[in-house]
Amino acid sequence: MGFYQRWRQLRFPGLQTCGLHTAAVPTPPHWLAERFGLFEELWTAQAKRLASMAQKEHRTIKISLPGGQKVEAVAWNTTPYQLAQQISSTLADTAVAAQVNGELYDLERPLETDSDLRFLTFNSAEGKAVFWHSSTHVLGAAAEQLLGAVLCRGPSTECGFYHDFFLGKERLSVFASNSRCLWRAGFHPLANRFGTQVMLLSRCKPANSHLSRTVRGSELPALERICQELAAAAQPFRRLEVSQDQLRQLFKDNPFKLRLIEEKVTGPTATVYGCGMLVDLCRGPHLRHTGQIGGLKLLTNSSSLWRSSGASETLQRVSGISFPTAKELRAWEEWKEEAELRDHRRIGKAQELFFFHELSPGSCFFLPRGTRVYNALVAFIRAEYTRRGFSEVKSPTLFSTKLWELSGHWEHYQEDMFALQPPGSDRPTSSPSDHSTSHPTDTLALKPMNCPAHCLMFAHRPRSWRELPLRLADFGALHRAEASGSLGGLTRLRCFQQDDAHIFCAPDQLEAEIRGCLDFLRSVYAVLGFSFRLALSTRPSGFLGEPCLWDQAEQVLQRALEEFGEPWDLSPGDGAFYGPKIDVHLHDALSRPHQCGTIQLDFQLPLRFDLQYKGQAGVLERPVLIHRAVLGSVERMLGVLAESYGGKWPLWLSPFQVVVIPVQTEQEEYAREVQQRLQAAGLVCDLDADSGLTLSRRVRRAQLSHYNFQFVVGQREQSKRKVNVRTRDNRRLGERDLTEAVQRLLELQNTRVPDAEEVF
Amino acid sequence: MGFYQRWRQLRFPGLQTCGLHTAAVPTPPHWLAERFGLFEELWTAQAKRLASMAQKEHRTIKISLPGGQKVEAVAWNTTPYQLAQQISSTLADTAVAAQVNGELYDLERPLETDSDLRFLTFNSAEGKAVFWHSSTHVLGAAAEQLLGAVLCRGPSTECGFYHDFFLGKERLSVFASNSRCLWRAGFHPLANRFGTQVMLLSRCKPANSHLSRTVRGSELPALERICQELAAAAQPFRRLEVSQDQLRQLFKDNPFKLRLIEEKVTGPTATVYGCGMLVDLCRGPHLRHTGQIGGLKLLTNSSSLWRSSGASETLQRVSGISFPTAKELRAWEEWKEEAELRDHRRIGKAQELFFFHELSPGSCFFLPRGTRVYNALVAFIRAEYTRRGFSEVKSPTLFSTKLWELSGHWEHYQEDMFALQPPGSDRPTSSPSDHSTSHPTDTLALKPMNCPAHCLMFAHRPRSWRELPLRLADFGALHRAEASGSLGGLTRLRCFQQDDAHIFCAPDQLEAEIRGCLDFLRSVYAVLGFSFRLALSTRPSGFLGEPCLWDQAEQVLQRALEEFGEPWDLSPGDGAFYGPKIDVHLHDALSRPHQCGTIQLDFQLPLRFDLQYKGQAGVLERPVLIHRAVLGSVERMLGVLAESYGGKWPLWLSPFQVVVIPVQTEQEEYAREVQQRLQAAGLVCDLDADSGLTLSRRVRRAQLSHYNFQFVVGQREQSKRKVNVRTRDNRRLGERDLTEAVQRLLELQNTRVPDAEEVF
Repeated sequence: MGFYQRWRQLRFPGLQTCGLHTAAVPTPPHWLAERFGLFEELWTAQAKRLASMAQKEHRTIKISLPGGQKVEAVAWNTTPYQLAQQISSTLADTAVAAQVNGELYDLERPLETDSDLRFLTFNSAEGKAVFWHSSTHVLGAAAEQLLGAVLCRGPSTECGFYHDFFLGKERLSVFASNSRCLWRAGFHPLANRFGTQVMLLSRCKPANSHLSRTVRGSELPALERICQELAAAAQPFRRLEVSQDQLRQLFKDNPFKLRLIEEKVTGPTATVYGCGMLVDLCRGPHLRHTGQIGGLKLLTNSSSLWRSSGASETLQRVSGISFPTAKELRAWEEWKEEAELRDHRRIGKAQELFFFHELSPGSCFFLPRGTRVYNALVAFIRAEYTRRGFSEVKSPTLFSTKLWELSGHWEHYQEDMFALQPPGSDRPTSSPSDHSTSHPTDTLALKPMNCPAHCLMFAHRPRSWRELPLRLADFGALHRAEASGSLGGLTRLRCFQQDDAHIFCAPDQLEAEIRGCLDFLRSVYAVLGFSFRLALSTRPSGFLGEPCLWDQAEQVLQRALEEFGEPWDLSPGDGAFYGPKIDVHLHDALSRPHQCGTIQLDFQLPLRFDLQYKGQAGVLERPVLIHRAVLGSVERMLGVLAESYGGKWPLWLSPFQVVVIPVQTEQEEYAREVQQRLQAAGLVCDLDADSGLTLSRRVRRAQLSHYNFQFVVGQREQSKRKVNVRTRDNRRLGERDLTEAVQRLLELQNTRVPDAEEVF
Repeated sequence: MGFYQRWRQLRFPGLQTCGLHTAAVPTPPHWLAERFGLFEELWTAQAKRLASMAQKEHRTIKISLPGGQKVEAVAWNTTPYQLAQQISSTLADTAVAAQVNGELYDLERPLETDSDLRFLTFNSAEGKAVFWHSSTHVLGAAAEQLLGAVLCRGPSTECGFYHDFFLGKERLSVFASNSRCLWRAGFHPLANRFGTQVMLLSRCKPANSHLSRTVRGSELPALERICQELAAAAQPFRRLEVSQDQLRQLFKDNPFKLRLIEEKVTGPTATVYGCGMLVDLCRGPHLRHTGQIGGLKLLTNSSSLWRSSGASETLQRVSGISFPTAKELRAWEEWKEEAELRDHRRIGKAQELFFFHELSPGSCFFLPRGTRVYNALVAFIRAEYTRRGFSEVKSPTLFSTKLWELSGHWEHYQEDMFALQPPGSDRPTSSPSDHSTSHPTDTLALKPMNCPAHCLMFAHRPRSWRELPLRLADFGALHRAEASGSLGGLTRLRCFQQDDAHIFCAPDQLEAEIRGCLDFLRSVYAVLGFSFRLALSTRPSGFLGEPCLWDQAEQVLQRALEEFGEPWDLSPGDGAFYGPKIDVHLHDALSRPHQCGTIQLDFQLPLRFDLQYKGQAGVLERPVLIHRAVLGSVERMLGVLAESYGGKWPLWLSPFQVVVIPVQTEQEEYAREVQQRLQAAGLVCDLDADSGLTLSRRVRRAQLSHYNFQFVVGQREQSKRKVNVRTRDNRRLGERDLTEAVQRLLELQNTRVPDAEEVF
């Protein structure tokens, strides 16, 4: 199908009425036609070349299929897709790409040599990346052809995709009625790259001068509809290998791509993909055709900053998500709705857990209920500390910057620290005897981390090997000067506390300590209801210290991980410059990943603080330092838990443990007594004696508020000193003796069971 | 006895060899002779006047004695001392002053009218004040005559007395061999007041040029010996009433006294006291004679700052203590030694509770053991909060100074606050889309108090009368910029936490809340082993708010105090400008007073924050705010407790609860098991398996370390799974089943008994 045919297909009927702030474009601009023409020309040549190679060689190659089966194929001819069809039509339909000898391939790309072949579907992370990357080409095509966008970048993300593009100083319209490329670019530097084609659109089409340079939210539905139609058109993705010259020729009208080619394309050739009328610089692989995208939804529009060497440009970003079927998209939409209902800021407000105030930006005010959850989390970790031989300490908040110079934070982290001059330090020294102000005072800074303070604690007196491992834990308040734009709920705060501990140990204790840290993680996450995945991050390119020390440490971590028995990944080069680490990704009840816990080795701080202990042989030795946290920021974990539980807290964390509901006003006094009994036992107990509401309405209200238990007390219960127990899921557990009920609640609270309502 | 006779008596034999850095003074300076001469002249005139008045009137007056007895006396003639002698010679010997119709009288001052008469002895606080005030006159005389001091002020204190005096720019010597007043004052402004008498001592007596302007510690013994000899000389205190003119004439050579006369003496007459050669401006009363001072000790020398309107001067301060008998002084010295042994800094170091570091001046590093005590204190208060309906909250540390402007702290407290500019606030706004840094950022300050944050919490949503009283408690870290010279151990810190709570209540709930606060205090202090005394401080002269509101509030506090049943004092005018308060002075095990807890009403913050709640009638009303704390600063309380217990912590606070001691190495494994059982139960348990020491040496060591319990395990205990229990006071409690012992320890810990070793 030729270019103009495709173009005509694009003139979607009714486009003008669907809310888009532009007129339908009657004919395509010449450069698009040029680029497409060049692509078609090169494509035809490539197809011929491949065919001739296949014919000339007619070489048979051996392919190992996923099940172990081996089949024969023709080099430069047989495609992974053909082989998938041989296996099953379902596989052929659901496969999104192939992995050939470890390299990602388009399904339609002919195999070249003997290969191990695997197929990727949407169900794997790699498959999703291919799927969403292909989807962003569809979005790019729609933006280019409909908004006149100059495309920049369109990557897949962890949960969808986005495309960044440029829309001119006010708004760039590549299309105009006279089919010439017209710009409303004004004085914008990019305008020069477009040479004589640039004209002010406002001059020739004053009716369009209200157009804005940003993408409006109201434009998303129209853009989405075009994406969907492009997808439904089942346009094939065509992979083309081109030389650098051809590449530059293809994108001569797109300054972003020219810059990207300059910076990223180092080899003599590169690949571009054609899909419909869009031709884009891209490594691939891609779906076979856009028809594989069964459901697509655009989500947000925002601006983004494109930084390239020496230049920066404000771009428009549209993000979206897509799925193989419309049904999967609907399921995702439901999940998304649930996640929004569970947003911790929403829950925090509804449950009166916490709030934020402009007079302390980036810091959270924890209300009584939020403080209860907070303290329960801290108490949990404290109990584990006792069990596991950690010693809690309390270190100061303000330190001389000399400490931060010593630790290296001042050099690397200064911009993120709150520093201050103590008051009076700039006062003139008025009296010679006023010794307190006569020597110069240091600049002080609020601690962003506890480690340097713990190093001072280790070093404050001589240490012996008998004291090791020394595990110092600290819940001290940490302050980090996050930019106000990056603050959001409990996820990123300027003030927070961590379940932070530092283990000082002898090198031969390292493995046991790492095992202990891993076990600590597993215990806590099990109680909180998280699954998790571990990754070993090894030395980065700029690492400090002795390579043999790194080798040993990485081996120790690896042994500990293997013995631990949970699956783990290797992230080569992802370690910190001061030591290797184990990253912990936990997954909440909605399967969303969070990074909270961490286990990091540090060879540098013991050196910087010259930490030493007297070894068994009487010689001074240097301890190894492990930084570790399980909850990470307690504040952030509280937010993660609020969302993971959807506000339905397990009993031991719950700020809504019990509500007592008297059946009639006659039982109000007894109800109050029940409440006091529970409160005296340290349980959270509220009273709902609102006689304006029926019993069932009050029970319903309690359940909507997620009270773990409702204790209903009527005349019968009062006379027998009992309570009638219901759970928040409306299970009726019947009459229980009050004393026994209190006892049982305490038991369930102290053992931190996740399902107290089930096992009461 | 004439002046020169007295002077000759002062030429103590051997003075030159007793370490004093001055030569004995051969003749007195002329101004001292002049002052003394004028005093004698006026004294003679006064004696004549009194005699003639007594003779002229010969009026009989009626005196009510302490027991209710009534006697007759002669006006202007009979003295309280004569009446004391009539009662008993012991009373006459031990009385230090009299109270005549509520006014304090010298014992030798003739009575004037019908009077209620009481006698003060050293045993009362008022008696001690008189005794120590008289002692400081002795110190002043010694300093004047021996060091050539220009006297300034000499008050009594809570535990002794001090005298502040001036010693010249380097050192002022009023005496010189040519018996003229010579100054080593150089350019000092005070020099001018002494006119032509001023000469540089270094010029005429180069041998003395090494003399320093400060009092040296090595000079104290000599000064003390002279004080003791002056006391032994039993010089009478002579009260003289003089006119303002006479006063100025007497002190024409002492610029401090002239300034004090200018500022303090408002009436037409004033009193001065003569004692030996010293004549001093003083309200009295005094002892009859210096011979009543049976034991006197000088303690410290330091410099102090004298501030008067517009001028300030560095003075020398010598402090001391004195008692009626040498025996009492010895007893005090023993007590003092004990107190020094109990110094919390000493205990903190010996027990490894905490330490200080120059990189965080004024902040404490709590080591594992100190943190244990700290957390036990906080847990205790938390338990009381639960029982008493307080809600714990967590508020931020850093706030915009706008908050502090609103609360008034910025106006009144700014110099004591740590303020800072958030990083990046001075960066230029580089990009128009970088909204985060485009609006001006506030100055932030670390909170010195929690109240304004709690006001924000109260105000963050509409409140109803149903929510009151709202009791918000917060252990947030507070920062106050104390001058580095005033920092000392845990007594004064720059960073600390309080058991701080704010009660927002309706006016008619005030009395019940105050009663609740008082009961809270009593419960906690009883557990900690403190007695305490309350004082009601009423409106000061510059109070803010409606007088009728103050009246009501003071009445409410008074009613609550009366109902509370403990003795209390009235401190009129000692309230804060924002509301009346109840001061709490606790007394530790050494009977030393500390101010820790407080209960303060505040009418101003609810106004400043415009706090409101919807009253029962539906109208918006203003709550009353109560600030209260029981421990006060947790850090400081920890120091007070360390001293009060002398490091022998009660079980529930103890960082040395149990040590397990295996009899032989064969029992080491069982001992370790015992240790782990106790640790798993959350108890502090150490192990002393040092086989190099005998059992009894290890038991002794444990007792010296103040371990509440020693669990000795031998073969017999191991086979029966028991432990042999001893207490730190070496009581042998015998064999106990391990499980039962753990259970009992937990019980005693949880009930916070003060004497677990007694009741185990």
